[in-house]
Amino acid sequence: MIDIEVLHRVANTLAERKEASPDSSYVSSLFHKGTDAICKKVAEEAAETIMAAKDKDLLHVVWEVTDVWFHTMVLLAHFGLSVDDVLAEFRRREGVSGIDEKKARTAG
Amino acid sequence: MIDIEVLHRVANTLAERKEASPDSSYVSSLFHKGTDAICKKVAEEAAETIMAAKDKDLLHVVWEVTDVWFHTMVLLAHFGLSVDDVLAEFRRREGVSGIDEKKARTAG
Amino acid sequence: MIDIEVLHRVANTLAERKEASPDSSYVSSLFHKGTDAICKKVAEEAAETIMAAKDKDLLHVVWEVTDVWFHTMVLLAHFGLSVDDVLAEFRRREGVSGIDEKKARTAG
Amino acid sequence: MIDIEVLHRVANTLAERKEASPDSSYVSSLFHKGTDAICKKVAEEAAETIMAAKDKDLLHVVWEVTDVWFHTMVLLAHFGLSVDDVLAEFRRREGVSGIDEKKARTAG
Repeated sequence: MIDIEVLHRVANTLAERKEASPDSSYVSSLFHKGTDAICKKVAEEAAETIMAAKDKDLLHVVWEVTDVWFHTMVLLAHFGLSVDDVLAEFRRREGVSGIDEKKARTAG
Repeated sequence: MIDIEVLHRVANTLAERKEASPDSSYVSSLFHKGTDAICKKVAEEAAETIMAAKDKDLLHVVWEVTDVWFHTMVLLAHFGLSVDDVLAEFRRREGVSGIDEKKARTAG
Repeated sequence: MIDIEVLHRVANTLAERKEASPDSSYVSSLFHKGTDAICKKVAEEAAETIMAAKDKDLLHVVWEVTDVWFHTMVLLAHFGLSVDDVLAEFRRREGVSGIDEKKARTAG
Repeated sequence: MIDIEVLHRVANTLAERKEASPDSSYVSSLFHKGTDAICKKVAEEAAETIMAAKDKDLLHVVWEVTDVWFHTMVLLAHFGLSVDDVLAEFRRREGVSGIDEKKARTAG
């Protein structure tokens, strides 16, 4: 089983780069540009995930999903949130079956 | 620090539901519908993430990012992949700065 | 050459349905739900356009692009705008080459 | 009423640029890069439309919808299709109410 703590290391690096100079790294530059620039990257990587899936190119799917997760983690950090908030939400949903979850959403 | 193993539990549940009857759960139904249906959900949840971000609605951002991660995990499972492949890709990238990463992509 | 006035007829129908009861038509219901519901449809149809393109399914591409145009016209009508505003923007851009346009954007 | 023929002029220009050297214009370069690059632009412009809508920035909405239409027209031209195919699809749908259309899709 893979060392899952890599997600916390990424989250920590993102929190550091948020405070750094805009020209010190790709991510610092992205934080500096703000919400729209980060959201645009999330949309782009989601589109690339879809294209990789349509190509049935598995290596590419993994790469693009990683890009989606990475840029959503940038978005979380931008708002002072973290991967822990997403993990807590996953935990909250445990025990709620998908169908119940969907009913809850429709009712909500 | 949050119990990060929840991601492996979700991945295991997804692997089980992939084999189950289409009408047994939301996720089994989604696997049954196939690549396009799953990709459409990834696109939808990415769009909802962007809208939550524009609303600066932090609870909603966490909810939608969780939905994005969940549906990309469905896509991974659909192709016989798993969260471990994404974690391995994150590990591969450790030590490569964002700017170097971007250069590598541009050169690639 | 095809009767291009169909776009004005669609725009007129949308303007009428905006005032109608939410349960009188699909579009009236969409107007009633508001910005997020309309935007979600724009994102969905864009994703379906991409999937049709990846399938090289030309009939499907035409269908999905029509859906994208239709739902962006719903969005325009939602804001009291119309296809004429888009046509005026296309006219404004005439004579500006794509490369100049891109430079203008980068500079802007 | 605005001169709607601008769409045919844009379509004609796109058809010409498809045959031109990749470095002669932004659009020629995009045709040369192919399906994925064009689709990525469609996704980007759809995301920017959503962000402009969330900002209630009407000038920006018009600009971004024009970008969506333009890049879907590039996609159509890439496949040897044209705005006339979209207009013909709009005409085919005339007389079919949105609710009937949705039922037809669900049944389809």
